[in-house]
Amino acid sequence: MKKLAGGIDIGGTNTAIGLVDREGQVLATHSIPTRAYPDVEEFVDSVSAALCNLLEKVGEPCELVGVGIGAPNGNYYRGTVEFAPNLTWKGVIPMARLFEERLKLPAYLDNDANAATVGEMIYGAAQGMRDFIMITLGTGVGSGIVVNGQMVRGHDGFAGELGHTIVFPEGRTCGCGRKGCLETYVSATGVKRTIVERLAKSTDPSTLRDLPPEKLSSKTIYDAAMKGDQVAVEAFLDTGRILGLALANSVAYTSPEAIFIFGGLAKAGDLLFEPTIAHFEANLLPVYRGKVKVLPSALPDFEAAILGASAMVWRRVGEKEPAS
Amino acid sequence: MKKLAGGIDIGGTNTAIGLVDREGQVLATHSIPTRAYPDVEEFVDSVSAALCNLLEKVGEPCELVGVGIGAPNGNYYRGTVEFAPNLTWKGVIPMARLFEERLKLPAYLDNDANAATVGEMIYGAAQGMRDFIMITLGTGVGSGIVVNGQMVRGHDGFAGELGHTIVFPEGRTCGCGRKGCLETYVSATGVKRTIVERLAKSTDPSTLRDLPPEKLSSKTIYDAAMKGDQVAVEAFLDTGRILGLALANSVAYTSPEAIFIFGGLAKAGDLLFEPTIAHFEANLLPVYRGKVKVLPSALPDFEAAILGASAMVWRRVGEKEPAS
Repeated sequence: MKKLAGGIDIGGTNTAIGLVDREGQVLATHSIPTRAYPDVEEFVDSVSAALCNLLEKVGEPCELVGVGIGAPNGNYYRGTVEFAPNLTWKGVIPMARLFEERLKLPAYLDNDANAATVGEMIYGAAQGMRDFIMITLGTGVGSGIVVNGQMVRGHDGFAGELGHTIVFPEGRTCGCGRKGCLETYVSATGVKRTIVERLAKSTDPSTLRDLPPEKLSSKTIYDAAMKGDQVAVEAFLDTGRILGLALANSVAYTSPEAIFIFGGLAKAGDLLFEPTIAHFEANLLPVYRGKVKVLPSALPDFEAAILGASAMVWRRVGEKEPAS
Repeated sequence: MKKLAGGIDIGGTNTAIGLVDREGQVLATHSIPTRAYPDVEEFVDSVSAALCNLLEKVGEPCELVGVGIGAPNGNYYRGTVEFAPNLTWKGVIPMARLFEERLKLPAYLDNDANAATVGEMIYGAAQGMRDFIMITLGTGVGSGIVVNGQMVRGHDGFAGELGHTIVFPEGRTCGCGRKGCLETYVSATGVKRTIVERLAKSTDPSTLRDLPPEKLSSKTIYDAAMKGDQVAVEAFLDTGRILGLALANSVAYTSPEAIFIFGGLAKAGDLLFEPTIAHFEANLLPVYRGKVKVLPSALPDFEAAILGASAMVWRRVGEKEPAS
């Protein structure tokens, strides 16, 4: 009987669920709206039911051996989701235990950005790299750091919050309550703030002026830039300038072989990568110049976290008995 | 016969040399002026002669089994000192090989801040810690990062240059050719620049105004502050504010259990630690608050790097045959 692992990527909007074999083939996937479940137990029920449906879909006889979960503010050591601002469940949620009780199978949990990082390391462009950083530019900014071939988790399991390093000490107010965090500039939300600032400051013509606010997104800004809208182009230049600086600083910590950029905003391609790489190199300490690659992730957004989450299961098969 | 390791700490001004036993007892030490040897071969001869003299001094029969070297811009992987701005020898110096050839013994080299970090980890206040950061506030700012109980060296051996993270993108010009590096604010040199700036900006009375420039040092600034000189006190507040912010950012990378402050400026005690810790806590992402200790190193400046350098010998005894 084919053994499969469940990979679950809990996002603020959607939760992606997949079945993955030991070789990293994603055999079946499903998605449910996270916000539709204000009660976390109902959420766990729904995800578990989806996993069972997927098992039937696979067609051949197969067995689920465990689940791996990637979640915002996930704590690998404790299997908990703690005070996640973008989720409806407040406080400390013992997510891994809830899945173990429901499925009677071992469940492992990690921060969502770490799960994607592990996915990239095992199945993506970081294969064989011992030192790299992955940065996720989505609604917020997440990151995973690998040193000596190991995930950096820190003493409390919360390492790798590059989105909350302060790049401008008196800068933009951040959702975390502080000012000038990288996330306020280089996330999808950050780019929108940059556009609004630029539109307010100048009278330059821009198609984005006529857009109702709810239509303004990193996608519409990208489309405008590709059509030559100068305000949109400059917003990407601003973003690349700040991201390049922040990535150069991060090299001074762990001197990675490569930095992978991942998430919605990374789809802007050259519009983002060109200014980012130029400012990255310009801001690097001379000893690091020309040595560190800045690359897009090689995995589809949807798959990286599912793959990374499921990889926890294969790595730790037999290590843990489920709660019963 | 008692086996001993040589620990050599190459500094811009002085080179400290010590004999250390396996238990971390420093049995004898000596110091020579680094700048007196424009020829690196003569430097190696002089350090080697000093080691032989120290062996005689120990009194009991003993054998030198190898030497460990801490040096600015030292590359652990290659055993080289590369483009060190504060040393007279230019380019890439194969320092470990030079010592091996001269002493016919294995020689190991590391960055000076890393050597001090290893000293703290094995013999100092970081014993038993798997995740910590050590930051050296001297003429410049050095640092060593430990993750999962291992030194972070990066893919090229140059990780851990926190002194060259940019804290103010349009800030002070740094010796490295960029602007706003942490080192330009929180080193001994940085505090002097802060004083000069403050004296130029205000007309506040200060005993430091009458001091000839060559007498202005972190020590005289400290003495003035202790006597209530407000300009000096405020310079330390500025320093703590910026150091606290930078250390808070570094927690978002590796989430260490503790950060150790080391080097000349750390001797300012509360004058530096109080504002540093206050601004550190204020700038931490909420999830890290109240969890990360900021502490002085538990080792004398002189000993930490010698101990850390010699520890490389014990860790790697038998691993390497000397060049012959």
